[in-house]
Amino acid sequence: MSGSLFGKNLQLMTWGESHGYGIGAVLDGVPAGLSLSEEDIQTYLDRRKPGQSAFTTQRSESDTVILMSGVFEGVTEGTPISMMVKNADQHSKDYSNLKDVYRPGHADYGFDAKFGVRDYRGGGRSSGRETAGRVMAGAVAAKILSELGITVCAYTKAIGPVKAEKIDLAAVQENPLYMPDAEAAEEASEYLKDLQAKGDSAGGIIECCVTGLPAGIGEPVFEKLDASLAKAILSIGAVKGFEIGEGFAAAGLTGSENNDPFTADPGSQKIGSAVGENVIHKKTNHSGGTLGGMSDGSPLVFRAAVKPTPSISSAQETVTREGENTEIVIKGRHDPVIVPRAVVVVECMAALTIADLLLTGQGSRLSDVKAYMDAVRGRQNR
Amino acid sequence: MSGSLFGKNLQLMTWGESHGYGIGAVLDGVPAGLSLSEEDIQTYLDRRKPGQSAFTTQRSESDTVILMSGVFEGVTEGTPISMMVKNADQHSKDYSNLKDVYRPGHADYGFDAKFGVRDYRGGGRSSGRETAGRVMAGAVAAKILSELGITVCAYTKAIGPVKAEKIDLAAVQENPLYMPDAEAAEEASEYLKDLQAKGDSAGGIIECCVTGLPAGIGEPVFEKLDASLAKAILSIGAVKGFEIGEGFAAAGLTGSENNDPFTADPGSQKIGSAVGENVIHKKTNHSGGTLGGMSDGSPLVFRAAVKPTPSISSAQETVTREGENTEIVIKGRHDPVIVPRAVVVVECMAALTIADLLLTGQGSRLSDVKAYMDAVRGRQNR
Amino acid sequence: MSGSLFGKNLQLMTWGESHGYGIGAVLDGVPAGLSLSEEDIQTYLDRRKPGQSAFTTQRSESDTVILMSGVFEGVTEGTPISMMVKNADQHSKDYSNLKDVYRPGHADYGFDAKFGVRDYRGGGRSSGRETAGRVMAGAVAAKILSELGITVCAYTKAIGPVKAEKIDLAAVQENPLYMPDAEAAEEASEYLKDLQAKGDSAGGIIECCVTGLPAGIGEPVFEKLDASLAKAILSIGAVKGFEIGEGFAAAGLTGSENNDPFTADPGSQKIGSAVGENVIHKKTNHSGGTLGGMSDGSPLVFRAAVKPTPSISSAQETVTREGENTEIVIKGRHDPVIVPRAVVVVECMAALTIADLLLTGQGSRLSDVKAYMDAVRGRQNR
Amino acid sequence: MSGSLFGKNLQLMTWGESHGYGIGAVLDGVPAGLSLSEEDIQTYLDRRKPGQSAFTTQRSESDTVILMSGVFEGVTEGTPISMMVKNADQHSKDYSNLKDVYRPGHADYGFDAKFGVRDYRGGGRSSGRETAGRVMAGAVAAKILSELGITVCAYTKAIGPVKAEKIDLAAVQENPLYMPDAEAAEEASEYLKDLQAKGDSAGGIIECCVTGLPAGIGEPVFEKLDASLAKAILSIGAVKGFEIGEGFAAAGLTGSENNDPFTADPGSQKIGSAVGENVIHKKTNHSGGTLGGMSDGSPLVFRAAVKPTPSISSAQETVTREGENTEIVIKGRHDPVIVPRAVVVVECMAALTIADLLLTGQGSRLSDVKAYMDAVRGRQNR
Repeated sequence: MSGSLFGKNLQLMTWGESHGYGIGAVLDGVPAGLSLSEEDIQTYLDRRKPGQSAFTTQRSESDTVILMSGVFEGVTEGTPISMMVKNADQHSKDYSNLKDVYRPGHADYGFDAKFGVRDYRGGGRSSGRETAGRVMAGAVAAKILSELGITVCAYTKAIGPVKAEKIDLAAVQENPLYMPDAEAAEEASEYLKDLQAKGDSAGGIIECCVTGLPAGIGEPVFEKLDASLAKAILSIGAVKGFEIGEGFAAAGLTGSENNDPFTADPGSQKIGSAVGENVIHKKTNHSGGTLGGMSDGSPLVFRAAVKPTPSISSAQETVTREGENTEIVIKGRHDPVIVPRAVVVVECMAALTIADLLLTGQGSRLSDVKAYMDAVRGRQNR
Repeated sequence: MSGSLFGKNLQLMTWGESHGYGIGAVLDGVPAGLSLSEEDIQTYLDRRKPGQSAFTTQRSESDTVILMSGVFEGVTEGTPISMMVKNADQHSKDYSNLKDVYRPGHADYGFDAKFGVRDYRGGGRSSGRETAGRVMAGAVAAKILSELGITVCAYTKAIGPVKAEKIDLAAVQENPLYMPDAEAAEEASEYLKDLQAKGDSAGGIIECCVTGLPAGIGEPVFEKLDASLAKAILSIGAVKGFEIGEGFAAAGLTGSENNDPFTADPGSQKIGSAVGENVIHKKTNHSGGTLGGMSDGSPLVFRAAVKPTPSISSAQETVTREGENTEIVIKGRHDPVIVPRAVVVVECMAALTIADLLLTGQGSRLSDVKAYMDAVRGRQNR
Repeated sequence: MSGSLFGKNLQLMTWGESHGYGIGAVLDGVPAGLSLSEEDIQTYLDRRKPGQSAFTTQRSESDTVILMSGVFEGVTEGTPISMMVKNADQHSKDYSNLKDVYRPGHADYGFDAKFGVRDYRGGGRSSGRETAGRVMAGAVAAKILSELGITVCAYTKAIGPVKAEKIDLAAVQENPLYMPDAEAAEEASEYLKDLQAKGDSAGGIIECCVTGLPAGIGEPVFEKLDASLAKAILSIGAVKGFEIGEGFAAAGLTGSENNDPFTADPGSQKIGSAVGENVIHKKTNHSGGTLGGMSDGSPLVFRAAVKPTPSISSAQETVTREGENTEIVIKGRHDPVIVPRAVVVVECMAALTIADLLLTGQGSRLSDVKAYMDAVRGRQNR
Repeated sequence: MSGSLFGKNLQLMTWGESHGYGIGAVLDGVPAGLSLSEEDIQTYLDRRKPGQSAFTTQRSESDTVILMSGVFEGVTEGTPISMMVKNADQHSKDYSNLKDVYRPGHADYGFDAKFGVRDYRGGGRSSGRETAGRVMAGAVAAKILSELGITVCAYTKAIGPVKAEKIDLAAVQENPLYMPDAEAAEEASEYLKDLQAKGDSAGGIIECCVTGLPAGIGEPVFEKLDASLAKAILSIGAVKGFEIGEGFAAAGLTGSENNDPFTADPGSQKIGSAVGENVIHKKTNHSGGTLGGMSDGSPLVFRAAVKPTPSISSAQETVTREGENTEIVIKGRHDPVIVPRAVVVVECMAALTIADLLLTGQGSRLSDVKAYMDAVRGRQNR
């Protein structure tokens, strides 16, 4: 397995198992000169912390970040940024009954089939705890983007069958489900309580919106912005689908319905102008902010489908490692829904993807490369 | 733009613009010893050829592949395989009216914004013609997989609002829309004729099924099988969404509904056994063939949402490069729906993705690496 | 074999065998807006053309470049640049006697051992002809560097035991050996004529000098400038050693001899100034232009050791593919020394390496990334 | 700077500065099933530990490895292996006089020029301490190779002008300079004591020999074995040259002298046989174990030129950050020669390079890929 590397010019390597020493992230390629403190990272980590509501596992993870390299006197120095949270609260005993049995919906069988070795304690590397590495790195990427005027914001669009009917960003931080619709959040809470009582779990949909992106981010034909986001988001455990703009609904529209007309008239979404002084607008944003795999200057809007938590407390049919029928009852602390905790993970993977493509795109025009070289020579007196 | 490279151990670089010399693909990392002829590739190219039905552009592209390197005496030699189709039928004049105007739903604006230079003839690099490179390479990948007992098969699941209600693979090759349901194909044809008469276009959904995959293909945590497929598929122009297994529907299910129970009982889908002699089965396949980002031994099933063709013949509002309001009527030959021609492209991107991950996974176990080294030493008498 | 890719942000894939359709190069990541014609590339190709002196093979290769993509109206458009020279003069018959025998000093045995398949005609992929792909791409890289004020210049430092005693760049183009010392060139010619008469061959040393590089190019700790150059240069067939600055001689010096003192005094080599208005100079350049793996603002000077051409016309002991003793006499046209033709190949690999690192380094400082984003937003009116 | 990643299928990311939290390495792609303990790694780390002789810095670094992930019950599990040594003995005050001045021969000026930020304490990221990350990872790579019957062994070939005249591997561990010639070691010790008394330093040459490699490791044309080694070795601070086999001496030989004849006669070096039952031998090994960029079955022999330690205690001319003339006297603990401590670093970089290429080469033949798939299916009962 050499799949723990993400990115090209902003490169992340994560490490760590659920019940080992800790979870870590090394982020290479961060430009020098960014103010960065442990607090910047902690703020993001706290958003994925469990135990914050009735709907997240009560495992008490302190998850305090240790910033181990790459920052000197409060500023990034251009070297790899190494971060870690230690695994504090380990009850390895809880998992002994999982040693010889495959949990349905989990990676257990896949790991055994692939590696012949499996850390059965809490899923090992396939645990949701792995996302702590993504969040530490994503917090740094988000700070880079913030310095460049770009904002990434995700929220819960649906919990099971309960959908947010409006997008009120102010409401997002005011309910434990991070829904942008207070009423829907209320309804979803009731739905979850019901499921919890039955020992069952729910899935949901996360929507993410990116604003402040100029046009032209993304590298055709294989490193397109939407394609890269799809991979980043699908790489999060439990995500089963990705769509951008109209997404799957676009398949049912006609060209005249789905195309976004350009217009010079203000009042529509301003997207910029490639040539000359006039500013161009888009009348609609069915595309979700991309054209030809590059940002088009309008807000990026995409969604992720999250499956219901596979760890449920009711009894399930399964087999042992030896392939004999058995029944499993998963004990321990498990989230009845992971959607709220995954919101910040989606944001972080989006931030990493966009920051990487943005750095990659710097060489798109010879005139920009010349301007960069002139700046270098200017400050070096050459 | 350095985004024309795909893959890690099976690496594809494509090149070419719609109205330049031709479209090409160089595929590096193909194992030596594979029988390969131009006919193997031509068969796949012919499936994306236009002019085969009323619903594809009448542009007459001969698209005859030239195999330029990597094959010696009918067999791959382990060196890069370079393939090309020349651009034969170029009516550059047709596009002169597009020089200073941005077509809605196309990449025109993005390219101008990013590069400041744009080949306006037929979309240049962003033309659907670019997919010829994917298909030539994908044909080779599919042949590798075929030698390993793995089959990739895609078909049209929906055209606009018309969905295939059954999956009859025999029917797929018998209608020009590649639908696995003859009746639905008939209905979809009527729907398309109507749209064509109105100068409009349709989208649709492509489903792809991969059989013969053992468990364990895919590299957690960032190079997961489903995530890699998502990127590959979203990198195809016009694709706006990707889902695997239940996909977006999983968001509305509960854990007890969505989990796939394992069982020793035959009669369910056999998936293999990691340890011992007994064979394991899955009672359902809501996961679509992956667990933890690795294949789980059951058939892989994923879907792509394709937007309606942006080139429509009815008049559309837009702006000029200088940002002034104008109206555009797109002339020339355009597909009212690209879904049928994209079916083979989806297959090819899936084949490339899977072959690459399969080659990458060879080093997952030390015992396999040892067996490989023993084989090498054995044939070298050392 | 997936080793035909070079570079990270400027990515080259080459293809082609000695006696196949042709030799090609696809270069992705070239910034848009560079004037580029076939003539720019042909000039470099002509420098590696055989048949230009008594010391190069008389094979008549026209080697006319065909520019197949990536340039529109004389200017690069940011898409992959595909180039090819066709294989015109193929006498495959000449090589039939090599089908079952391993030439000493050639890659024949390695290819058979690795792949089990081997194009024995002229070495196939391992032929010196492969370097045509490097030269086509390197010509483009050199043009990028030239636009940025950076010059790469290589010459023959030694032929066998005959060393250039002075560096007179004007002399380089005036002798067929590209030596910067007319007298040494004369002496080397005599040496080569002697060897040729004996059916033997010679090696030599190529030196390369890069001027105009500001300080800071190269990415510690693994993508250092000197390390990257070493790989690029050693990847050229027949190169057996690389050194920079004092190189191997540095091993015998003391720290006080080898360190290059910095000084404010003009009259030494100006290297720039990191902070403030004063310009810094280096009194000596034992380092060869790098410090800590980054350019230091002084001229880059490195050398490559080229082994004698393995194809010699005198009889040699060897074995057949079946491992039986035999004798081989290599017929056909072969250079008694490849050093002069390799000079342009060294230049080209250096240009590709430096251009790639330069593009990669654009994101080293947050302030530079901000300036880039401001420029993008400025021209997009956002 | 995104240059802290090494390798393709065995991927190493290192992090850490001389005076920060610690130095770390994350190694991804290690096959599952390898027995691995902290002791395996510590043994290698101890070989680069300072304070072991009069010729290494007396800084007392405990350098005890902490193994943080990737190993479960004593065996690698296929997930990233994260390792760290903490920075225990930090005297940051020692470096305050270096804040505003550039040490000749060090990376100080380069870092300031590139990043505008510099950790002046002990060189920060450019400190020799960075190599601890290489050694931790290299120890794991060496263990993989050892399981496959491959041995990597380096030693000091020369210290300043004193060269080992014989290669007696038994002697290597018996002198603090790791020379394979006890007498030369004695002489070198005297030379170093003299230099130390004068406040000066020495360089030297490290030779490395790899045995047990079958033919065919290395990926033409850019990922050749020798080219990849060159980059790996040159990426070590202070290395200024790399050569393989005859290296620079080959430039002065003729083809008939430098070619290695193949022979069926035993008594020469056995290299294997590609076809049939007979074993092939090489009469000489001028090539140093590679042909066409691939291993040829004979021992790999290469050398690295190490410059004299730039930190010398005698006064040196230099400039301040503001570009004003000054004089510097480097205080603190510095090795008069780093060659002995670099021996293990060379071994480790070679092991990482070879293990990576070996894993990459597994897909070279379709028959090997088929055998791998058959093994997978066999153990999965499919």
